[in-house]
Amino acid sequence: MKTVTFLIQCEDRKGLVCEITSFFFRKGFNIVHCQQHSDSRINRYFMRIKLDMDGIQSTRRDIENDFAAFASAYPLEWSMHFSDAVRRTAIMVTKESHCLYDLLLRWKESELNCEIPLIISNHPDLEYVASQFRIPFYCLPVGDDKQSQEMHVLELLAKNHVDLLVLAKYMRVLGAELVSTYKNRLINIHHAFLPAFQGASPYRQAYERGVKMIGATAHYVTDELDEGPIIEQDVERVNHEHEPEELRRIGKDIERLVLARAVKAHLENRIIVCGRRTIVFS
Amino acid sequence: MKTVTFLIQCEDRKGLVCEITSFFFRKGFNIVHCQQHSDSRINRYFMRIKLDMDGIQSTRRDIENDFAAFASAYPLEWSMHFSDAVRRTAIMVTKESHCLYDLLLRWKESELNCEIPLIISNHPDLEYVASQFRIPFYCLPVGDDKQSQEMHVLELLAKNHVDLLVLAKYMRVLGAELVSTYKNRLINIHHAFLPAFQGASPYRQAYERGVKMIGATAHYVTDELDEGPIIEQDVERVNHEHEPEELRRIGKDIERLVLARAVKAHLENRIIVCGRRTIVFS
Amino acid sequence: MKTVTFLIQCEDRKGLVCEITSFFFRKGFNIVHCQQHSDSRINRYFMRIKLDMDGIQSTRRDIENDFAAFASAYPLEWSMHFSDAVRRTAIMVTKESHCLYDLLLRWKESELNCEIPLIISNHPDLEYVASQFRIPFYCLPVGDDKQSQEMHVLELLAKNHVDLLVLAKYMRVLGAELVSTYKNRLINIHHAFLPAFQGASPYRQAYERGVKMIGATAHYVTDELDEGPIIEQDVERVNHEHEPEELRRIGKDIERLVLARAVKAHLENRIIVCGRRTIVFS
Amino acid sequence: MKTVTFLIQCEDRKGLVCEITSFFFRKGFNIVHCQQHSDSRINRYFMRIKLDMDGIQSTRRDIENDFAAFASAYPLEWSMHFSDAVRRTAIMVTKESHCLYDLLLRWKESELNCEIPLIISNHPDLEYVASQFRIPFYCLPVGDDKQSQEMHVLELLAKNHVDLLVLAKYMRVLGAELVSTYKNRLINIHHAFLPAFQGASPYRQAYERGVKMIGATAHYVTDELDEGPIIEQDVERVNHEHEPEELRRIGKDIERLVLARAVKAHLENRIIVCGRRTIVFS
Repeated sequence: MKTVTFLIQCEDRKGLVCEITSFFFRKGFNIVHCQQHSDSRINRYFMRIKLDMDGIQSTRRDIENDFAAFASAYPLEWSMHFSDAVRRTAIMVTKESHCLYDLLLRWKESELNCEIPLIISNHPDLEYVASQFRIPFYCLPVGDDKQSQEMHVLELLAKNHVDLLVLAKYMRVLGAELVSTYKNRLINIHHAFLPAFQGASPYRQAYERGVKMIGATAHYVTDELDEGPIIEQDVERVNHEHEPEELRRIGKDIERLVLARAVKAHLENRIIVCGRRTIVFS
Repeated sequence: MKTVTFLIQCEDRKGLVCEITSFFFRKGFNIVHCQQHSDSRINRYFMRIKLDMDGIQSTRRDIENDFAAFASAYPLEWSMHFSDAVRRTAIMVTKESHCLYDLLLRWKESELNCEIPLIISNHPDLEYVASQFRIPFYCLPVGDDKQSQEMHVLELLAKNHVDLLVLAKYMRVLGAELVSTYKNRLINIHHAFLPAFQGASPYRQAYERGVKMIGATAHYVTDELDEGPIIEQDVERVNHEHEPEELRRIGKDIERLVLARAVKAHLENRIIVCGRRTIVFS
Repeated sequence: MKTVTFLIQCEDRKGLVCEITSFFFRKGFNIVHCQQHSDSRINRYFMRIKLDMDGIQSTRRDIENDFAAFASAYPLEWSMHFSDAVRRTAIMVTKESHCLYDLLLRWKESELNCEIPLIISNHPDLEYVASQFRIPFYCLPVGDDKQSQEMHVLELLAKNHVDLLVLAKYMRVLGAELVSTYKNRLINIHHAFLPAFQGASPYRQAYERGVKMIGATAHYVTDELDEGPIIEQDVERVNHEHEPEELRRIGKDIERLVLARAVKAHLENRIIVCGRRTIVFS
Repeated sequence: MKTVTFLIQCEDRKGLVCEITSFFFRKGFNIVHCQQHSDSRINRYFMRIKLDMDGIQSTRRDIENDFAAFASAYPLEWSMHFSDAVRRTAIMVTKESHCLYDLLLRWKESELNCEIPLIISNHPDLEYVASQFRIPFYCLPVGDDKQSQEMHVLELLAKNHVDLLVLAKYMRVLGAELVSTYKNRLINIHHAFLPAFQGASPYRQAYERGVKMIGATAHYVTDELDEGPIIEQDVERVNHEHEPEELRRIGKDIERLVLARAVKAHLENRIIVCGRRTIVFS
């Protein structure tokens, strides 16, 4: 089934559901799924509406223009996503393979609706994984000149028409231009239950603090390190037997699950960002 | 805020969301919350819509009649629930206090929006709990004549205008009349992760089978033992150290949480039953 | 079965298990349970050994003296706990009843092997709970003179021979003398997944940060606020629908479970503190 | 560190820990880890003891003979496992790749201490996975003559000196000879929370029953289908939105985690089987 999904947010007021669904009804759409959220604290309304494209005669351009005209009256903040416009997703890694493998396997088993045109790393170690799955691999070491490396990354992403950038254990802080170019389209996995254990060596920190659970957090990247809007988190129980190395091993399973869920939610257009918070329609 | 919640189900077809929300818009309602589900396998549509009563001039009788007229055209199966029409909830117990206490404490802390006009037991043991919370307690032993005991229970429930009956570890199978009178308004807690370990002594069964997790299940009661629509389940990890007695202790914490969540979902009008399955809007 | 449990820690070296178990074998003890842990990072050894007192002729004083002589050679740090020397446990509260009720119900159902000679509060609100369970209740408001209130608390605890002090949502920071007097015998429940959200209003902080799980932490109290050794933690999944008030409600269920597990572990002599970390034998 | 691990079970009686640890002390061993369990219901004692081989002069044959002599007096049931005697593990699959990939990735990242000399399937579909990891792949279709296929499997396993056989979604019931040859060394993953949903199509069964959690179970295979001793289980929360196909997708993540944990526990010699139950030392 071909579908189109709209993600919408605006100031809340009476009649919104009715007016928006009426708009789509008049245009001949059948609603496949409609989810909403109202945040009374900030008087804001959020909607995810997924529509069947079957039997729709209008061109996509027309749909977009009509909705834009409709939306401007409120105004609505919105985005529109056709199910067959498969997102081009680039993955950045350093040396650890577990998240990369996990994403590639899910992609291969059609759990993730995307194309993966390239993998970028600052180290050569994971080239073999890329080649197992026949995906172009670019090794761009950072060296002395971080800025020129990032320019190179940006060029590669642009040339490959990348829509979504996933940091699957890329162990460097990105520069401001990359971050702003991929605002709300740049997902990172942090190996701790944020906001606990920000920064480096979270498993060592967790060990020393003697916590009884460890976690991982997937979030959109912003200018502030480990402070971007959280998409997904999970934890696993640990105990005094687990030294930092074992926490790291247990953490790997959490990291890959959490990152995969976040990427999947993004690709299925389930996420709306509002300030530092995300609405993730399940 | 005074609200009214409609639970609706019907055959799925184009335009339903729009038509239903338009109906309420025309009547002047503001939508507080609207949740939907479509089951494509049986072509069935489900909606929970919660509306603000503020500024509504129509009487409740008028609202009901108008919606009934509107609904008959489809037809919709529906129910209507005013937030200030507090449900009268009876609790039945035998000898174990943990679920009873849990419900009473949540009720006292206003987590459960209900009145509790009476507690019924087939044993006198828990009278002290009822008296701690100043709730009338009726001890109706089953004895030789189960049928007359159940007639007595039914009379008490009717006299107290009971809307919801909760079996909080009532260790007897109910008769057909009670079950049919309280169809979809009769919640039981079973001390196992159904459909595993139906019937008696589930903790002993679990121990002997050597499972690594135990659970509990809250469900609506039907004529078939432990086969009614499941509302909520949860589990806890166990290991070889746990003998049946300890499984029972661990299970108590699961039972009370699971039962409380199910009762809360019912009281907040979040549940629609469809065949053997429940839609529980979260 | 009457038992005695020893909690032991010392520098690790070859032969320890064998020597310690041989000591108890020679004294005629049957081992009910023996658990160990070695921390190779600090070369430290930990043991919990539970022994059957059946058929043991020696007096308790003799057992203690003999083991003290044996231990001094290594030296071992140790403590000894007879199962029938029921711990006298005081509970401190402010206004919230959920943790207090939970502890009292578990105590009543014999899940917690302790006596509860008194409940202390800085507010009168929860006196009714204490009276439901017929436990003396002392209301000691803090007022202007925190120090004299704490002296009063200390006197009450001393007069009642209190072994364990549980802060079941006591919303004040304790003074240094109380903390040092009850070192490693003073358990607090913090309403967040430490080290995230230390300090005040953790649920509001969690809401604003947009986390996808909230938690609670039981820990021994030390001079540093929310920094004491963690005994137990747990979390629950939340989402964008949950406003701070609902996080608080969900959090209450986590808090009472986590506190109960920590108190139970302490009463069953399962915890050894080593620096900022705890070994909790399960 | 080279180690040797003994798994021991016997009738419980006084002095066992002391006598066994004394034996190893006299032989010059340092204990790395010692875990025990007593099942008072059947008066049975279980021990896992892991010893440092450093500085040990005796040959492995001598260690074995000495312990055998010592054990025969009780008698103890026991097995002995040297950490450098890496287990040869064969994997059997049909068409689904997720568990196979998961095991191979963990093996490659040294999470699983084993060799994988071959992969056997009744279908050719997953040959490409085997070749990505350069592991010999044997496609042995079952066809009309199940018995001769199994003879072929047995030969391959024998020729490759296979110690452990893992059914990573092998969708056929094994014959009696294979099962008895690999008794307690043959691990299967069942795609349901046993004993719920035994047999075929558990996700469809789970959907139709309307359960709120689905699970997976890793167990040793015995003659009775889905009745062997359970090693590990886990579950994930689901709701009315999840159709059987989505349950299957969610289930895949549970299956691979549960199977990996079970295989890891086996390879680390943490499991003792006693009747239908397992002791899994954590």
